[in-house]
Amino acid sequence: MGLKSFVEVPDDSHFPLENLPYGIFRPKAPVGGDPSQAVAAPRPGVAIGDSVLDLSAISSAGLFDGPLLSNSQCFNQPSLNKFLAMGRPAWKEARATIQKLLSLIKQNEVEMVLPVVIGDYTDFFSSMYHAKNCGTIFRGPENPIPTNWFHLPIAYHGRASSVVVSGTDVIRPSGQGHPVSSSSPYFGPSKKLDFELEMAVIVGPGNELGRPINVNEAYEHIFGLVLMNDWSARDIQAWEYVPLGPFLGKSFSTTISPWIVTLEALEPFACDAPKQEPHPLSYLAEKKHMNYDIPLEVWIKPAEHEKAAIVTKSNFKHLYWTITQQLAHHTINGCNLKPGDLLGTGTISGPEKESLGCLLELTWNGQNELSLNGSPQKFLEDGDEVIFTGYCKVCY
Amino acid sequence: MGLKSFVEVPDDSHFPLENLPYGIFRPKAPVGGDPSQAVAAPRPGVAIGDSVLDLSAISSAGLFDGPLLSNSQCFNQPSLNKFLAMGRPAWKEARATIQKLLSLIKQNEVEMVLPVVIGDYTDFFSSMYHAKNCGTIFRGPENPIPTNWFHLPIAYHGRASSVVVSGTDVIRPSGQGHPVSSSSPYFGPSKKLDFELEMAVIVGPGNELGRPINVNEAYEHIFGLVLMNDWSARDIQAWEYVPLGPFLGKSFSTTISPWIVTLEALEPFACDAPKQEPHPLSYLAEKKHMNYDIPLEVWIKPAEHEKAAIVTKSNFKHLYWTITQQLAHHTINGCNLKPGDLLGTGTISGPEKESLGCLLELTWNGQNELSLNGSPQKFLEDGDEVIFTGYCKVCY
Repeated sequence: MGLKSFVEVPDDSHFPLENLPYGIFRPKAPVGGDPSQAVAAPRPGVAIGDSVLDLSAISSAGLFDGPLLSNSQCFNQPSLNKFLAMGRPAWKEARATIQKLLSLIKQNEVEMVLPVVIGDYTDFFSSMYHAKNCGTIFRGPENPIPTNWFHLPIAYHGRASSVVVSGTDVIRPSGQGHPVSSSSPYFGPSKKLDFELEMAVIVGPGNELGRPINVNEAYEHIFGLVLMNDWSARDIQAWEYVPLGPFLGKSFSTTISPWIVTLEALEPFACDAPKQEPHPLSYLAEKKHMNYDIPLEVWIKPAEHEKAAIVTKSNFKHLYWTITQQLAHHTINGCNLKPGDLLGTGTISGPEKESLGCLLELTWNGQNELSLNGSPQKFLEDGDEVIFTGYCKVCY
Repeated sequence: MGLKSFVEVPDDSHFPLENLPYGIFRPKAPVGGDPSQAVAAPRPGVAIGDSVLDLSAISSAGLFDGPLLSNSQCFNQPSLNKFLAMGRPAWKEARATIQKLLSLIKQNEVEMVLPVVIGDYTDFFSSMYHAKNCGTIFRGPENPIPTNWFHLPIAYHGRASSVVVSGTDVIRPSGQGHPVSSSSPYFGPSKKLDFELEMAVIVGPGNELGRPINVNEAYEHIFGLVLMNDWSARDIQAWEYVPLGPFLGKSFSTTISPWIVTLEALEPFACDAPKQEPHPLSYLAEKKHMNYDIPLEVWIKPAEHEKAAIVTKSNFKHLYWTITQQLAHHTINGCNLKPGDLLGTGTISGPEKESLGCLLELTWNGQNELSLNGSPQKFLEDGDEVIFTGYCKVCY
């Protein structure tokens, strides 16, 4: 049985009262309004059905009356970072208060903006199926997964400045592409533009430099999850990535969803994470080794098509390394995480052909074609709209 | 002939009136003072000899009377980012005004702090000698330099949160080390802690997402240079870096000098950069292909020694890819740079055995020993103080 509310939420909404994801929005300027008028300030909100609860209004009206939030300015901010820094007790208090509240704005009357100031963005590589497929494509079928992969959650530093909110146009990047045999490298717009189906952690309080976070306390440092598209230019990436890893093949844009779904909301969907063999080193061996059962889909709508076509169905639960293991590993060397940091999971591929998380895998580096409503396609074309969805539902 | 000033600057000072490097400082609390008193706010300053010019005081007194700075609050800030965003005309106006001014505080009466809020930190790999030596050590003497290296300035995203100002203690990181043959990976404090001799660009105005910076305009986006130590744990790095590049082997600390030396101050020391063969692609072919002649030294002072010992003498001019080429390459895919971003050059090694920029190269991955005032040493020991210097001098 879902929670009851006087707010009408359609049964198939991604945002029932049990979810309450956080985002930053501003009311849209009225159509035909005075263009000289100042744009409304961005502010925190929570999504309910097709509406947004304005947390700055709720806060200014004194409705956050709990001990942690009653005197806080954390919701009178243009980003969530101040709220994130307060940690789980404040997050729980906010959730309890909001579940009793009301003041809603229609989501189609607001514009969503980036919810956090991202200090650093890290991207992991935690799906075994993705690691195996990429290894086979780039390095051949013998030992496609590097030896270190089963011992540690591999990751690289990504580019924070080019993280954008869903709906932002992505410009096809130019760069050097992998030359054929010994010819000179190709230069021009990328011919192998791809999406990567990921989710990402939004970090809460974080740690001081030199003080690692224990794997069994990592949960307290994770505010919630967003959907993430780690757009990739495969031709640029293939040429530049030896020996220091991905750089311009990734840094032209990374899209995250405007709503941060909290771990509280995801709790009913927790499930066992895959058994790990070899057993991880003690700093990665966690008492609760859990994933979440979050079905994920990717759809593509080509510019001239009326409807989007589904291209993959995967699930967050396929991740081999959990988000708590990722966070503990990230800090074991003393590296400091800050409120609002973004930790991507890496592409989430499943075991089946229909559950692969990027076009590189789905078309086997352009060797095969997909069918989008009957039209053949290999990599992304100009005007394509790429749609990610993730939606948990309890079965009664 | 140097500029004349009533300020006495010793002949061998790194900070003559021609230099005027920028930093952020706060006056130290008086010894024995009231500990309940608020710590003084950080503010911008310029170094002259052993003194600091307090730019917030100068600005509040109305002494910046030029058209760009007279009504600006850019020096009443705890970081330089606002000033950096204003671009070269403002930087030139500030330099001209400061060269006429006076109000000085002794450097030993202030505490220097991180001069910029670093949004993103990128590290390049632009010394051919370093690339060749690392390739030989890690992958063997056949084709030690990857094919792509001569076509593009290779780089990776680094960790911005763990960049600290010179003088900050560095804690030896723990992590997984490369296992011997097929044994399990080692876990514990790094046994191969290293320095890397680098310099780094501090970015000025930068660019919008999707709008690359032309290589011949890149100079206008570079405010100045700092010394940088990209501390590295070689055992952690060697095990984790395949296939996505360096991560925890680097992210535990990166040290930059507190003073940013401007390109205006370095102009007299400009010199030709190495001829590039193959000729770079047109987006990297620059009209002025220049380096700076900046002699660099690294000294190590072990805890129990009275004196530091010199371990290398290199020079900024050894870089194969120039800082303007690095910046243009970084943005060619549309990636946006922001005021205060940090772009490291990579380890600056020279051609001679005595000019190698890290212990990995100097000891050939621990196969050889260095002599520090007669004591043998391979990697960094607890308590070692690592000192970088860079100092240009005109020969009259």
